[in-house]
Amino acid sequence: MADETVAAIVEAHRAGASPEASVARAYARIRAHADPAIFITLRDEAEALAEAKALAARRAADRALADLPLYGVPVAVKDNIDVEGLPTTAACPAFAYMPAKDATCVARLRRAGAIVIGKTNLDQFATGLVGVRTPYGIARNLFDPALIPGGSSAGSAIAVAAGLVPLALGTDTAGSGRVPAALGNIVGLKPSLGLVSTAGVVPACRSIDCVSVLALTVDDAFAALAAIAGFDNADPYSRRRSPGALKEVPRGARLGVPKPDQREFFGDRASAAAYDDALARLARLGASISEFDMAPFYEAARLLYEGPWVAERYLAARTVIEAAPEAVHPVTRQIILAGAKISAADAFTAFYRLEELRRVCEATFRSMDAMALPTVPTVYTVEQVLADPVALNSRLGAYTNFVNLLDLCALALPAAMRAEGTPFGITLVAPAGEDAALASIGRAFHAATALPLGATGAPQPALAEKARVSV
Amino acid sequence: MADETVAAIVEAHRAGASPEASVARAYARIRAHADPAIFITLRDEAEALAEAKALAARRAADRALADLPLYGVPVAVKDNIDVEGLPTTAACPAFAYMPAKDATCVARLRRAGAIVIGKTNLDQFATGLVGVRTPYGIARNLFDPALIPGGSSAGSAIAVAAGLVPLALGTDTAGSGRVPAALGNIVGLKPSLGLVSTAGVVPACRSIDCVSVLALTVDDAFAALAAIAGFDNADPYSRRRSPGALKEVPRGARLGVPKPDQREFFGDRASAAAYDDALARLARLGASISEFDMAPFYEAARLLYEGPWVAERYLAARTVIEAAPEAVHPVTRQIILAGAKISAADAFTAFYRLEELRRVCEATFRSMDAMALPTVPTVYTVEQVLADPVALNSRLGAYTNFVNLLDLCALALPAAMRAEGTPFGITLVAPAGEDAALASIGRAFHAATALPLGATGAPQPALAEKARVSV
Repeated sequence: MADETVAAIVEAHRAGASPEASVARAYARIRAHADPAIFITLRDEAEALAEAKALAARRAADRALADLPLYGVPVAVKDNIDVEGLPTTAACPAFAYMPAKDATCVARLRRAGAIVIGKTNLDQFATGLVGVRTPYGIARNLFDPALIPGGSSAGSAIAVAAGLVPLALGTDTAGSGRVPAALGNIVGLKPSLGLVSTAGVVPACRSIDCVSVLALTVDDAFAALAAIAGFDNADPYSRRRSPGALKEVPRGARLGVPKPDQREFFGDRASAAAYDDALARLARLGASISEFDMAPFYEAARLLYEGPWVAERYLAARTVIEAAPEAVHPVTRQIILAGAKISAADAFTAFYRLEELRRVCEATFRSMDAMALPTVPTVYTVEQVLADPVALNSRLGAYTNFVNLLDLCALALPAAMRAEGTPFGITLVAPAGEDAALASIGRAFHAATALPLGATGAPQPALAEKARVSV
Repeated sequence: MADETVAAIVEAHRAGASPEASVARAYARIRAHADPAIFITLRDEAEALAEAKALAARRAADRALADLPLYGVPVAVKDNIDVEGLPTTAACPAFAYMPAKDATCVARLRRAGAIVIGKTNLDQFATGLVGVRTPYGIARNLFDPALIPGGSSAGSAIAVAAGLVPLALGTDTAGSGRVPAALGNIVGLKPSLGLVSTAGVVPACRSIDCVSVLALTVDDAFAALAAIAGFDNADPYSRRRSPGALKEVPRGARLGVPKPDQREFFGDRASAAAYDDALARLARLGASISEFDMAPFYEAARLLYEGPWVAERYLAARTVIEAAPEAVHPVTRQIILAGAKISAADAFTAFYRLEELRRVCEATFRSMDAMALPTVPTVYTVEQVLADPVALNSRLGAYTNFVNLLDLCALALPAAMRAEGTPFGITLVAPAGEDAALASIGRAFHAATALPLGATGAPQPALAEKARVSV
């Protein structure tokens, strides 16, 4: 189905198809899918249609508008990112406010031609990798309704995986943009720190937060990244970094994998087998695979959850959590309130250790271009997570938590469908600035899997010429 | 007197003079100067002489050794920097330990041919800008014995200013390498963060500590910097930065100065007048002087003393301060113990503000090559500081405290002798990496002052050819 991807939709619009119709189709699909837990706020349809119509009218007057990279593409935005005219809730009604303007990333999406159609559900305050810590309902996993959707960007991932919209924004501090991508069989792009402005985004851990992209293909995700990336004076953590350009990846890309005894699947043999298969596929594509010591990265991952960065979550939610603690999800409250008790001395102790780990990380990447990791070690049911909400959540972050702390970029990719019909994903991880390199490897890998797009059943589109490169 | 500077001493040694004699002369001068508060530990003279003799013997066998940039130069080392064979006290006897090896910077000094002759007094744990917070006595100010020596690198600065050694290492977190340089009429070079390894240095605020250089001339200071700079895997805060090379500075270097109503001298009109004179001299040398808004820099300065970085001092001294609080200087104890009470949340709040200030700083430097500031706004007597130890100390840091936090480099320079016979200094400040640019401007300025070297009465040597450039 040619109308599933950003690339196909933009191409169709350029050829004369109506953006209004694309927006209408998104709303129709949302109604047909009938999961009220995906969107927290759906934008008024007539308003979105009017915007699409106006865009098309402007385009008729100015042909250059057709070159907009996201011309007429309906997009969903995680509800911790400001969209003018829609409330920002961060999945906490007591926290909700009406933003005065778009977040920078949303403004850039719109400038690129996208039409925002709603705000998506999330683990409250983007704290969680499960997608169940929200008063707005638990979005249904598309492959097995007993499973968690994954989070925290649950609604954005499902909206894309279900084909409701071809593109959504998430955020990613500990894996929130990658974990739900894995559970939705879609692409989750976690850019280098500071590459995409977080101005207008509700902070989770402000010093390491990233806006992330959820899409059906790597090309779509990278096109969106290119549209939203760029220095922003309004974000003190913004950096002068470039997403780079997709390129032919030299045969023999060096990919690192954890030593066998360091691979953690928490007993999930199907995941372990799917990971082995993915590595074999990468090798067949021409990558050279070597092992590295994962221990320092696991240590960095633990630092994120057990260390001082929780204090940043406390800062972000402090006003509401102090004024009305019962208004905060009990699990989220427990996690965030722990952040109030950490001392600055303990914080600096963790920073010192992190600096040491960064040095180790730097050395590790001297012998490889990217890590190829499982995105999640295993997956849990909603029931399991509700019964053991903190420990199981932590397990899901084993391969994602260290990434932002170490200033790395990451790309979560569909890798396989497991026998019981649930998706398995891998994540490529590289030093900051290598976003395009990851995408170049990732698009070749994803194409080679020949997996359908998300949960839509639609086949992947043929890769554009630049993509037919070996890894 | 040709034997005062590093350059002159090395030249003499290359021409055949004996390093042993230079070392012996340092000890003779130390005895003659007879201030027991300059050195905490003086190295056994026979041992230092033997090292100098051995160096000369090796040189006789290997002529290449004569090319060592610090060949046979006697140096003093602040007693918070490890020197193998001498205890490190940080001016706290209860904290003292015998280091297993040289700090990286000391090892590099020695590799460059320097002979360490002792460890110098300091404000305990390098906490202070006054030089009086130490149980090892208060080193005499060389220009007025009633005045403080300035700190925290008090002993190193006085050892150089008095001509006891031509070169000393200090440290500088908030101004500890610049303030005592100003009070000693010498040069204090505070390198870019991470340019000189702090491995083997007792931390003050580990995330922003710098090893600094104290010397009689800019050329000497820069030569020492070149010898000790370089990436060091043993220091997680080490960075791959280069000191650069001295160069001809284009006429019309753009120097920024605070707006007149933002210049703070705490009523010291002599300092204000000396500062005006220094700016006039810079203008005569060809610099263009423009005003900038100092407010964000004063705010960053306050952040250092009132913000979370005090928690780093607590971490560094925690063991001794908890086991034996009475073993710590009462003022230092009071300051450091405050660091135990700061929360991680407050720390992150300060980090966020600092990121914003960094952005302002970046913008400020777009319109200037360097700031030209007073090094200290005024100077106090020992009696005044003992009566009001914290507030007056803070005042001394008005123009120095923000530098490390904002990742800037700085060069403190002699500027004038005030009517009553005490020195006034200015400091050039620039973004990290501009160490050589500051030195290039600074050497021209210092030469133009025609001030004698430190308190030695010796005239400045003629500048080498590269130095006869306009600013």
